[in-house]
Amino acid sequence: MCVALLPAEASAHSDPVATIALWLALILLAAKLGGDLAVRIGQPAVLGELLVGVVLGNLALTGFTALEPIKRDPFVEMFARVGVLILLFEVGLESTIGQMLRVGWSALLVAGLGVVAPFALGWGVGAWLLPEQSMFVHAFLGATLTATSVGITARVLKDLGHSQRDEARVILGAAVIDDVLGLLILAVVTSVIVAADLGGSVSLSGIALQLGIAAGFLIGSLVLGVLLSKRLFALASRLRSRGVLVACGLSFCFLLSWLASVMGLAPIVGAFAAGLILEDVHYRSFVARGEQGLEHLIHPISSFLVPIFFVLMGMRTDLTSFAQPGVLGLATALTIAAIIGKQACALGVLGRGVDRLTVGLGMIPRGEVGLIFANIGLALSVGGTRIITSATYSAVVVMVIVTTLVTPPALKWSLARAVRRSALRDGPAGGARRESGSS
Amino acid sequence: MCVALLPAEASAHSDPVATIALWLALILLAAKLGGDLAVRIGQPAVLGELLVGVVLGNLALTGFTALEPIKRDPFVEMFARVGVLILLFEVGLESTIGQMLRVGWSALLVAGLGVVAPFALGWGVGAWLLPEQSMFVHAFLGATLTATSVGITARVLKDLGHSQRDEARVILGAAVIDDVLGLLILAVVTSVIVAADLGGSVSLSGIALQLGIAAGFLIGSLVLGVLLSKRLFALASRLRSRGVLVACGLSFCFLLSWLASVMGLAPIVGAFAAGLILEDVHYRSFVARGEQGLEHLIHPISSFLVPIFFVLMGMRTDLTSFAQPGVLGLATALTIAAIIGKQACALGVLGRGVDRLTVGLGMIPRGEVGLIFANIGLALSVGGTRIITSATYSAVVVMVIVTTLVTPPALKWSLARAVRRSALRDGPAGGARRESGSS
Repeated sequence: MCVALLPAEASAHSDPVATIALWLALILLAAKLGGDLAVRIGQPAVLGELLVGVVLGNLALTGFTALEPIKRDPFVEMFARVGVLILLFEVGLESTIGQMLRVGWSALLVAGLGVVAPFALGWGVGAWLLPEQSMFVHAFLGATLTATSVGITARVLKDLGHSQRDEARVILGAAVIDDVLGLLILAVVTSVIVAADLGGSVSLSGIALQLGIAAGFLIGSLVLGVLLSKRLFALASRLRSRGVLVACGLSFCFLLSWLASVMGLAPIVGAFAAGLILEDVHYRSFVARGEQGLEHLIHPISSFLVPIFFVLMGMRTDLTSFAQPGVLGLATALTIAAIIGKQACALGVLGRGVDRLTVGLGMIPRGEVGLIFANIGLALSVGGTRIITSATYSAVVVMVIVTTLVTPPALKWSLARAVRRSALRDGPAGGARRESGSS
Repeated sequence: MCVALLPAEASAHSDPVATIALWLALILLAAKLGGDLAVRIGQPAVLGELLVGVVLGNLALTGFTALEPIKRDPFVEMFARVGVLILLFEVGLESTIGQMLRVGWSALLVAGLGVVAPFALGWGVGAWLLPEQSMFVHAFLGATLTATSVGITARVLKDLGHSQRDEARVILGAAVIDDVLGLLILAVVTSVIVAADLGGSVSLSGIALQLGIAAGFLIGSLVLGVLLSKRLFALASRLRSRGVLVACGLSFCFLLSWLASVMGLAPIVGAFAAGLILEDVHYRSFVARGEQGLEHLIHPISSFLVPIFFVLMGMRTDLTSFAQPGVLGLATALTIAAIIGKQACALGVLGRGVDRLTVGLGMIPRGEVGLIFANIGLALSVGGTRIITSATYSAVVVMVIVTTLVTPPALKWSLARAVRRSALRDGPAGGARRESGSS
């Protein structure tokens, strides 16, 4: 007996949802166990999800191969793909276009330096340690170091109770801009590689076109979105069935994801833009009639789908590739480049009263964005040679894990130091004001 | 540029999530528009979702074929399949095993009569109008008439503000039992048909075995679930990352769905059992620390995934089959059998003060369960001949639409009549008490 939606599946016991349900249950339980262990040792949950995925994905080394089908299951992968869209949408929802504009020049400078320095350092590490490989590989390594994981950054600041400090605003604003800049760089690097693979050359006009399309899509969707979304959601708030807000929010996210893909951008860029565009005022009328805000409603959906992405990413980390010569060296060099590169951000902070070291440390985590970049690299090749080999991919994963791991303790230490300093500078009253503001 | 998780997809513009995102956005928007129209004319939203699906799925008749790929997209279908699991889990969460036991004998008798009478009438309609087809077809038609859609029933009672009346408790209790009984009947009918197709015979021992396995799974999972789930969720409440409750609840639902499938039952039986087992006390410690209840958390997920199922079901309704001879006749006879059959439920109400007509009318809607049954039929065949042809399927869809459509106005009228009657019987004071209790 089965709930067979397709006549083709005639057997009563072949309902494919049963196997997928089992995989999803195992992934979710593993994710929460891993997340719990990570939280217990003071680390972000995403680290535990990745590590538990690494363990599950490499159980085959011990002879236990029952979980191997999960790695290549197309349905689990599609759930993970939709999960990334939901994650970037959720991260976008955390910021508004207005907040990005208010943090202004500091955030823009910090973001710019936080992209240029790691890109140059990553390229240099590639040229130094992988001299036999093409400059495409070096450029791609540079690109994977550019983006800041705004999700991890925001979560760490929130966990530490400092999300209302000036440092937090600059870091979050810059991380948001960084995501866009990093994605733009990736778009350029990717299109150059694809052009090279198709026999074309690295033309400046091609890059300019790609940049123009990407910037045009982003600015266009932001402007159009700001102009239209308020009206569209006011219209949608007149719809009377249950779950209208969450359905309309997701539809907006999915439509912009598709549109971004049509424009030649990654779907996640569209999902993120959708999140940035939507602000609380857009669904004010929903909240006024007793419904919850969109961030609240998206949260259970992301709790369901997002861990699938991270556990699957972990499962696809091939531990045997660590044994290949050069991986640990590359991983170490990449990690150092990733950490030092983001310290250039400190130079971008304008004005006083903002702790520069904290900003630099807060920009370190690469998280999901670095992994997404590395996965894009896995799919690219020039003349049949893959841009990112499994060894390089593993080095990037090590870099992501280490940058994610070092941030919380480093940020905790640096913020405590900043609080002490501002207390000394402002005197007891100012210190007390700052302390209460940051709790 | 794409977020390609699989190396095989090398092109930058082939990210499959983009197409799926577009389909999901269209389905969600269509579902909410259809749901709104349905709610505006006083009908349940699910009716609008079905009808909008019928419209979208038959646009090809006007020459617009762009939406045809959605009907057979395996990923959209998998989202719909997981959506049904979530729906049955959510419906299960609305009831507890304790509530089922409390409504007791009335609910059990109402449920039993509400299964036996429609089953016999449906069989009779099949034998009368489809004499050339096998008794398997007749039995299957009877089975599709048995189940009550507890989701639609509960929603209608809630919409009308009468979910605290005795009639509501009996209807909901009976509808819950009906779901299980109907699924059992379907399991038996299906296994008989599968056995016949494989050359076996309709053996009483085979039926008894199937019934034994099904009953054993249900009772076993309910008993084990009650014994273990409290402890398991207390253990889970110690996990410290975000979204633990929703992840554990879904994992429980998915694991039981898989287990049901292993036992030869439909995955939705397991999902429903998981919902029945879980009670508020199981996640008391989650709620105590400020998290929301599981029903609240599941709601956005079901708002996302469940409409996909109903719109897809509507899209697969082939309007051209209405033109086949006998469809409208069969649909009319099935609908009358479905409505009259459930009026036998009125005889099962024990005790006084419960309006029998209201109980009978409240049992009418077939909703998603009838469609699920019909879809199972689409996948079954005996000797290469399909049990449910597209014409029969369309007749069942008409029956589901009509039974869903007639219930809200009928129930509204009958409840108003019951309130007037009890006011006359109990005098002004009793009437006032009842009125306030039912508001």
